[in-house]
Amino acid sequence: MTRRPALTVVGATGGAGSVMLQILSQHADVWGEVRLVASARSAGRKLLVRGEECEVLALSEEALDGADVVVFLAPDEIAAHWAPVAAAKGAVVVDSSAAFRMDPDVPLVVPELNPHAVRMRPRGIVASPHPTTLAMIVTVGALHAEFCLSELVLSTYQAVSGEGQAGVEALRRQISLVAGTGLGTSPGDVRRAVGDDLGPFAAPVALNVVPWAGELAEDGWSSQELGLRDELRKLLDLPRLPVAATCVRVPVVTTHSVSVHARFENEVDVARAHEILATAPGVVLFDDPAAGEFPTPADVVGTDPTWVGRVRSSPDDPRVLELFVCGDNLRKGTALNAAHIAELAAREFTAR
Amino acid sequence: MTRRPALTVVGATGGAGSVMLQILSQHADVWGEVRLVASARSAGRKLLVRGEECEVLALSEEALDGADVVVFLAPDEIAAHWAPVAAAKGAVVVDSSAAFRMDPDVPLVVPELNPHAVRMRPRGIVASPHPTTLAMIVTVGALHAEFCLSELVLSTYQAVSGEGQAGVEALRRQISLVAGTGLGTSPGDVRRAVGDDLGPFAAPVALNVVPWAGELAEDGWSSQELGLRDELRKLLDLPRLPVAATCVRVPVVTTHSVSVHARFENEVDVARAHEILATAPGVVLFDDPAAGEFPTPADVVGTDPTWVGRVRSSPDDPRVLELFVCGDNLRKGTALNAAHIAELAAREFTAR
Repeated sequence: MTRRPALTVVGATGGAGSVMLQILSQHADVWGEVRLVASARSAGRKLLVRGEECEVLALSEEALDGADVVVFLAPDEIAAHWAPVAAAKGAVVVDSSAAFRMDPDVPLVVPELNPHAVRMRPRGIVASPHPTTLAMIVTVGALHAEFCLSELVLSTYQAVSGEGQAGVEALRRQISLVAGTGLGTSPGDVRRAVGDDLGPFAAPVALNVVPWAGELAEDGWSSQELGLRDELRKLLDLPRLPVAATCVRVPVVTTHSVSVHARFENEVDVARAHEILATAPGVVLFDDPAAGEFPTPADVVGTDPTWVGRVRSSPDDPRVLELFVCGDNLRKGTALNAAHIAELAAREFTAR
Repeated sequence: MTRRPALTVVGATGGAGSVMLQILSQHADVWGEVRLVASARSAGRKLLVRGEECEVLALSEEALDGADVVVFLAPDEIAAHWAPVAAAKGAVVVDSSAAFRMDPDVPLVVPELNPHAVRMRPRGIVASPHPTTLAMIVTVGALHAEFCLSELVLSTYQAVSGEGQAGVEALRRQISLVAGTGLGTSPGDVRRAVGDDLGPFAAPVALNVVPWAGELAEDGWSSQELGLRDELRKLLDLPRLPVAATCVRVPVVTTHSVSVHARFENEVDVARAHEILATAPGVVLFDDPAAGEFPTPADVVGTDPTWVGRVRSSPDDPRVLELFVCGDNLRKGTALNAAHIAELAAREFTAR
């Protein structure tokens, strides 16, 4: 009889952490011991996992002992410090933060796309992509395998939970301030109602869209825009792929959407693209505008796959496809992809 | 002494109509008699224009008598029927609907771009573009004059007032239903809260984005997406310009935004683009992300110009610029552009 591997989840008390607990309960037979870890502030809380109460431990050297796999659902700076500590103790580390995504010695993994890369991890760390990348990569990757991608132009519609609970609370506070009013029609009226209570955003997000996500990088680009480009190039192994992204925050709680303009080396047709997307793992094709069928965040939130619709070819260029994709940024976008990577690593232990 | 021309406004009681009344009061010396016309349902209402009460007349043959210029701020089917009637009576007709925009005998006019086209009107009708076109055309037109446009990829963030008062009321009702709740995190929770009360939209628009605007045209494209392409080609006199648009409705009351990926024949640089945009008529350049400066609908609503920010050049292609533009869809997007066209026509009468 094989031993089931031990899992430690760091960041168990956040939004992605609570989704991870649901996933662990659904996939209850994968893991032996499950340990939950969070900041000292959350230590001692009891959370339900696989039907049993589990006490949250404070993050420390000792808390990382004894795990076969450690999943980090924690901020960049926590992961940057503690992931190498866990790896040095012999665990396989799965990190959902940005800390290691572009490290050449850390594979960036989407199990539907490049599952074998999990085993090539010289630092003992495997990275999971940004939620916006994960909202679209499975769709675009499946089309690339058939048609060979040559350019991407992306505009995002990113949910506020991408900035964590602080983002969700800021939107909810702001919506309460504007509900039942006539705001949104005079210069600055939303800004005056919201005041300085912007939460993690650079402008009001209720009754508004904010064309900014991340930090200022070079030449006016945001870190998330350049990160999307870098991650897509690494995942698709196309180091020179032109990728132009504009990242925009919208008043949606959870589920990122992306408008995708994809040019390929070869001519594409919508019927063949539909066939590919209808059978691609992790993808739901939902594309019949005549019947009102196209993905929206309100319909996709809480589901595992990425959804794609509005598939159409350009009358101007037979190599171009337009798509609209939605993916739950806490599920496939964070916890689910990390769980899938962790389960690939778990097989190494059960196969021993 | 010159006679000041007589103006009739059809559709005076709608959202764009009320903006038109403000504009007429601000430009009080342009017009002689001003007559307000609307549907029979609104006839008899008294509206304030240039500081005086003015009674709204029901739309009829007689109501269109005696005008030098008639502006239609009315639905397509009303304009399609009544604009030729007004033109046959000798008036210059300015139509903001889609009814005549692509008619080869009707000029499509943006005064900052092609003011002289107003005089070339074999049918007596001049058309004003769709609000989404108007949100971006002045910006893109100014850059085209310098660098020569060769391709556009557009993703929109369109306000609900694009569907009139019914759109605004639907969003406000839906926001009241979701305010103060924890909705937006479980499958279908927003849809259940909103129920069948979708107003003019194909899906809930509160806490959501809806990748659909207009009617179903051919091959999965929406009428607004193809309309954007056709109008941009006509306005820029580039009949074969590749334009790929994805039109998305967002929970914003008023002001359309567009993420623009523009490729030019010639190499571009951001410093020169900034110079052009800083001096282009009808444009406000608001582009300093380090200082938190980029346009958002909440800051732009209620203002006349189109605002542009996030100007950046592609590290992958020196001929490409990215922009984010916002324009009030009721002001420059409808009433203001129509008023500007009408004022160009008015000069013909005062110059006589």
